[in-house]
Amino acid sequence: MTGKGGFQHYKFEVPEIIFGRGLLRQVGSCARRLGGKQVFLVSDQGVFKAGWVDLAIKSLHESGLNVVYFDQITPNPKDYEIESGFREYVAKGADVIVGLGGGSAMDAAKGIAILSANGGRIGDYRGSDKIHRPIPPLVLCPTTCGTGSDVSQFAVINDTEQLCKFTIMSRCIAPDISLTDPETLLTLPQHHVGSTAVDALAHAIEAYFSIAASSLTDVNALQALTLLAKSYVRAVREHRIEDLEDLSRASLHAGMAFSNALLGIGHALSHPIGGLYDVNHGDVNAILLPEVVKYDYPVVTEKIAGLLNALGCELKGNEEFAEEMTVSVIENLLDAGGSPRGLRTLGVREEDLNKLAELALQDVCVLTSPRQTDAEDLLGILKRSF
Amino acid sequence: MTGKGGFQHYKFEVPEIIFGRGLLRQVGSCARRLGGKQVFLVSDQGVFKAGWVDLAIKSLHESGLNVVYFDQITPNPKDYEIESGFREYVAKGADVIVGLGGGSAMDAAKGIAILSANGGRIGDYRGSDKIHRPIPPLVLCPTTCGTGSDVSQFAVINDTEQLCKFTIMSRCIAPDISLTDPETLLTLPQHHVGSTAVDALAHAIEAYFSIAASSLTDVNALQALTLLAKSYVRAVREHRIEDLEDLSRASLHAGMAFSNALLGIGHALSHPIGGLYDVNHGDVNAILLPEVVKYDYPVVTEKIAGLLNALGCELKGNEEFAEEMTVSVIENLLDAGGSPRGLRTLGVREEDLNKLAELALQDVCVLTSPRQTDAEDLLGILKRSF
Repeated sequence: MTGKGGFQHYKFEVPEIIFGRGLLRQVGSCARRLGGKQVFLVSDQGVFKAGWVDLAIKSLHESGLNVVYFDQITPNPKDYEIESGFREYVAKGADVIVGLGGGSAMDAAKGIAILSANGGRIGDYRGSDKIHRPIPPLVLCPTTCGTGSDVSQFAVINDTEQLCKFTIMSRCIAPDISLTDPETLLTLPQHHVGSTAVDALAHAIEAYFSIAASSLTDVNALQALTLLAKSYVRAVREHRIEDLEDLSRASLHAGMAFSNALLGIGHALSHPIGGLYDVNHGDVNAILLPEVVKYDYPVVTEKIAGLLNALGCELKGNEEFAEEMTVSVIENLLDAGGSPRGLRTLGVREEDLNKLAELALQDVCVLTSPRQTDAEDLLGILKRSF
Repeated sequence: MTGKGGFQHYKFEVPEIIFGRGLLRQVGSCARRLGGKQVFLVSDQGVFKAGWVDLAIKSLHESGLNVVYFDQITPNPKDYEIESGFREYVAKGADVIVGLGGGSAMDAAKGIAILSANGGRIGDYRGSDKIHRPIPPLVLCPTTCGTGSDVSQFAVINDTEQLCKFTIMSRCIAPDISLTDPETLLTLPQHHVGSTAVDALAHAIEAYFSIAASSLTDVNALQALTLLAKSYVRAVREHRIEDLEDLSRASLHAGMAFSNALLGIGHALSHPIGGLYDVNHGDVNAILLPEVVKYDYPVVTEKIAGLLNALGCELKGNEEFAEEMTVSVIENLLDAGGSPRGLRTLGVREEDLNKLAELALQDVCVLTSPRQTDAEDLLGILKRSF
């Protein structure tokens, strides 16, 4: 590691990526190619109602595969949901897993995959590189536009005893295939288009600022920002497929960036908040993002021109206002897309802020923050975002 | 496919990438991680003389692996060399392959891997998707800065009966691990630094113009161009590690781009030239590139601003001269780095041009050319580049 200049050594890993409108119809051939017979399909009830589960099941059947359908998961997927899915997986003799949905369905699919190969409780695998046996073949199909779980080496699960989220990080849990069909966004409610896209925005910015960023991750982070600057607001307002497709692409690029560069204090803070209040992950990130950028700003100044350029702005002799401009561009984008402001609007309680700061300091995302932090600084960010 | 706008559906695949100065010392742990015991190390005599083979063997031994060393290959690797390597692989009971060198050593390693799993003659696998059985674990370590073979789904082999090069294209032949140690460039002769870097330049431009280009490949193509514009000339002239490292990175980015977007008529033309005359691949590409760009220009105008921007230029109201500017920027870069001009300087014979154009028209790279071509047009490019 070279401090400010980032790691000198790096790794870059992404799964096979398949992308295109209408391609969910090919999920069957993807699962069959991986050698499965009995597919465990993990999704959720919203995706089911929108008709995508039926489409996926039809494709899986047409490829000669049997399907076990499982949708007993909720947003911010819970440890006991994963464990119940695992028992179902075993009971039905499944041998390949398809996750279809947002981050919750996909992270649940990862969790079930981990248990099916390694046994135990899902909490046993928190932290990095605790998984020793390879998981079953896994295809992940996002139906939102921000999580990046479909390309990432992460799963985030809610610990319902401790009331916190924990992160599982392992190269083993990147899927074999990431299959994105941007048409699935056509049925995603407007608020979720917005809140998942700002999650991608936060992923891109935190990955770009990360001390583990490299040339390979930066190009993806910046491309995500370019696509978001171009299409995010219009996608939320008009819901046209062209713009939604740009958001799908932004999610992919941001996912490739953060899976390899990791994240920073924004996600370190949003994980305990999500664990304690079961609130929308994208909303939390959107609220925190401006203060996170202000906090990181002094140590990432050399990367700001690239960030602004990707967001469609240019510094021309007004370097004195570069910080204000950077924060304003991001705030304007968030506001125009209808993101909430203020953690209090989500139900966060002022008396919990201290505890949240302490928990955030334990989160793995702190390790790649460009600015060394402590509980006091994190508390300050929470207060200013309150 | 949507014509000018590129494919609407796309795939993107890259191997695990490990990058950093001094990391060739970790080739042993990479090979061991893939499950091998008896390593078949494919390299060449230049790399051996520079000391890198010893370093690799030491690392492999320290990881408890046995090593069979094979270096009976030449630039533009020949079919019979691959087949002889395969016999050696079998005779010594090897079970994992490490390719260390330029495109020739790495493509030879791929060829030996194909035969060891699938049998037959290497020519049986020409074209796309002819490989049915998975190859042994494969680690590729480039010691030049252009081929991209270490991340690509391609191998290019010389057919010594027909005197032409053929391309093998299959997702199966991307390696498990691409391990780049930029320090290996410190011992690469200046001319090879230049000629392999311009191969990366040609990869990036042809991939960027390809009809199979996507957002995922474009960011990598443009990043390769940015790095080349920044560091290519200085790297050739001064041979400093900082600049050489940029070239290594450019090669990786360009490789990720062309492995997924494929190439165009530049490589379609350079393959038969390499087959007939056994000349330096980078030199041929450098000579052809300006005429290829002029030829493609009318159908890629919407991508030119991005290209120029990556090369450090900007169109500001001088769109009338955009084509001339584009070609000049590329020619200036090639000239400043000392690339040759004129196919005749390589020993290409004027009476062969017709045959070369006919052979190029059969090359797989023609399929992703942005401009539909024919033998007459290809002959024109050869004549203008003569």
